Amino acid sequence: MQKGKAGPRLQQIIDHAKSHAIAVRFVDGARMGVPKNCRHQGVVARQSEARLLSLEDLLAGITDEEQTTQARILVLDSLQDPRNVGSILRSALAAGFSRVILTRERSVPLTGTVARTSAGAVSHLRLCQVVNLVDALNRLKEQGFWIFGAIAEANAAPIYTTDFSGPICLVIGSEGKGIQPLVRKQCDVLVTIPMQASFNSLNASVAAAVIMFEIARRSL
Amino acid sequence: MQKGKAGPRLQQIIDHAKSHAIAVRFVDGARMGVPKNCRHQGVVARQSEARLLSLEDLLAGITDEEQTTQARILVLDSLQDPRNVGSILRSALAAGFSRVILTRERSVPLTGTVARTSAGAVSHLRLCQVVNLVDALNRLKEQGFWIFGAIAEANAAPIYTTDFSGPICLVIGSEGKGIQPLVRKQCDVLVTIPMQASFNSLNASVAAAVIMFEIARRSL
Repeated sequence: MQKGKAGPRLQQIIDHAKSHAIAVRFVDGARMGVPKNCRHQGVVARQSEARLLSLEDLLAGITDEEQTTQARILVLDSLQDPRNVGSILRSALAAGFSRVILTRERSVPLTGTVARTSAGAVSHLRLCQVVNLVDALNRLKEQGFWIFGAIAEANAAPIYTTDFSGPICLVIGSEGKGIQPLVRKQCDVLVTIPMQASFNSLNASVAAAVIMFEIARRSL
Repeated sequence: MQKGKAGPRLQQIIDHAKSHAIAVRFVDGARMGVPKNCRHQGVVARQSEARLLSLEDLLAGITDEEQTTQARILVLDSLQDPRNVGSILRSALAAGFSRVILTRERSVPLTGTVARTSAGAVSHLRLCQVVNLVDALNRLKEQGFWIFGAIAEANAAPIYTTDFSGPICLVIGSEGKGIQPLVRKQCDVLVTIPMQASFNSLNASVAAAVIMFEIARRSL
């Protein structure tokens, strides 16, 4: 906590921290450990980096019942904008995609901006980074997962008439380049969001959320 | 165009511009007129500011048939993050919300970042800024519109079971404060996105998109 700051909202944070046995320190503004161009409101929390699981650990946690009904894994293929990644992780948790696989190469590290834009979701998701996404998707197929790739092409299957039942895996590509060609080949079904003909462009994090919530809607 | 830059993609832009009678000038990088901290790829387009309509002009353009079937107006109540506003405008156009009302007070101006984040959508939407949003919503009600307010409260009506037929108006509030209390009172129905109980937080632009696409889905 920044010395000299006070008020009911900060006191609430202090009380919360204490009741969870989290140490609270009061320091000068300049010693908060926040980068210069980064705004804050007088509070900084220090936490360990997002814990990454191996693919086998990610899969091992899926129970048999969940496996056959609504296991959902999100895959982010080479996403580079930390704000997009953070926003997608936030939406994933809210839509029930509690497991996320990210590519190790050409991806943004899961640090500051991602954690912050995710509104804390990084700490609640089961995350896994893989070197070879094609191998990982094959492993998922062996486990009975269907692989859906999201693309922005009108001839793909409209999400609203696609069967998303069973254990599924949804692959999202980067905004500029989409899903990598070799990864795309591994997809069982390519899906798209039907849009007004005159304008068919969505931000990557928005497109990911619209598809995840459409899938979540089916199991309500 | 920046002098010295060349290639098939830039040539394509030049050809497009010429075929639309848009003047092309070649200048030094330093004279492109781009702010220092703003990245570009050697091309800058100069366009007039987004044209704003009066509320009456916005309404006058709605034909009788559209009026009774699927007229949809989006209202942004005091949104301040230019990236969120740009992203929402981009989603609005893609989801068929071609008319948008923004509050004049406490809102971000429709300049650079908004236009850019909207991926050009600002130039295709019918936009209107109003001083008094409560008056504007009353005017819309006189015209037969139903006013839906999006809130993040579990006791609001779930979007998936809400009747969105008829001419409708969807109000989105700012991420921090939500819809203003007086505006909220004008809403006929308050709606929310059902979420996983453990985590019920979405970015404002994502929430807006999920609701708009759910409404769009109904009329497919």
